[in-house]
Amino acid sequence: MRVDPDTHPIVGHAPAGTVLTSAPQDTAVDRATAAARRVVDALLRTDRANANLERVAEELDSIAEHLEEHAPEVQERLVDMWHGEGVTRHDPVTGPENALAPPLVLSGREDGSVEGVVELTFPYQGPPGHVHGGVSALLLDHTLGVANAWAGRSGATAQLNVRYHRPTPLFEPLTVTGRLVEQDGRKINTAGEIRTADGTVCVSVEALFIDKTVPRPR
Amino acid sequence: MRVDPDTHPIVGHAPAGTVLTSAPQDTAVDRATAAARRVVDALLRTDRANANLERVAEELDSIAEHLEEHAPEVQERLVDMWHGEGVTRHDPVTGPENALAPPLVLSGREDGSVEGVVELTFPYQGPPGHVHGGVSALLLDHTLGVANAWAGRSGATAQLNVRYHRPTPLFEPLTVTGRLVEQDGRKINTAGEIRTADGTVCVSVEALFIDKTVPRPR
Repeated sequence: MRVDPDTHPIVGHAPAGTVLTSAPQDTAVDRATAAARRVVDALLRTDRANANLERVAEELDSIAEHLEEHAPEVQERLVDMWHGEGVTRHDPVTGPENALAPPLVLSGREDGSVEGVVELTFPYQGPPGHVHGGVSALLLDHTLGVANAWAGRSGATAQLNVRYHRPTPLFEPLTVTGRLVEQDGRKINTAGEIRTADGTVCVSVEALFIDKTVPRPR
Repeated sequence: MRVDPDTHPIVGHAPAGTVLTSAPQDTAVDRATAAARRVVDALLRTDRANANLERVAEELDSIAEHLEEHAPEVQERLVDMWHGEGVTRHDPVTGPENALAPPLVLSGREDGSVEGVVELTFPYQGPPGHVHGGVSALLLDHTLGVANAWAGRSGATAQLNVRYHRPTPLFEPLTVTGRLVEQDGRKINTAGEIRTADGTVCVSVEALFIDKTVPRPR
């Protein structure tokens, strides 16, 4: 599927450096999500003997209850969340409305690739002090999808081949890149990397996407 | 590295059905984490026009502030979290102390494989109503690591090759399985799948792990 350059930024039609993911907005839901992200992180940091954890559990449950009381049915919410720029507001990698997302901010480059810098903390840990291998795969899979859109294409992941060259550190800026390498009929071949600030490649990926339209719920 | 059957359950030394991931405990931190997980989910479900989201943001920030005030330095916390069964309490897939984790509970089977059932919701969404391809990769990578341990081995992921056969549904029980296929010197070959309740394979994985000891901090 060819992405429409009138509704989505595409290399050649949009300036290099265009942010391709949803920027956090000055809205209550984005502020609440950013705060929830901070809670997720702080729960892993805080002393296990913290005397107020009982109270924290009660408060968080009470907040959840309130939010759930104001939630529409799943089907209704699903339709609503896929309207407008919904596609990039709630995903688990870049979504400012998803507390699971670090969030990664990706920009388009003139050469057709996309790039973002992210620093990961305890919630994303695999081996001691390092990023979980599956988290790296998650970041790269999503980045390749955004790279396809920047190149004017869209598709679904068919194969994701990840190689781990060395452990990826937590608490350091990591550069995540992705690009469409070539398209052959409906097959879209892509590649990407995660690098440390000095350019060392920690993880690389090659993936195959199949060009197709993913229907939005109505 | 051969896992020590005296400290870790291994097929043949432990009964089939042994839970290999940390069970949630009746502790304040586990209750607080479960509540945070509920908040993360509810934030994606709730009506964006929910009038109390401002208040929710303030309350969550205040909780985070309190937790951070009682947090040791990162290095100190890192050492502490890798003591005892720390390895399975805070990871982003099965960890009862990590609000990002669904959490997936994995049990060992007599044939040497491991299995768990999980139902994923909005935070894990990729295409509309379906699991994010990168989330499937994350779940499978972790499951293969647990499968290696059940087979008495441990290693680091070197290659992860994921194939997407069909979209993986949200809001349905999914069975995640993994197994060590063969070991050749330091190379450990593994495989796994994600299936729906009727047995349909949505995602399959083959991965190469390299047998090595991952040093714990201090």
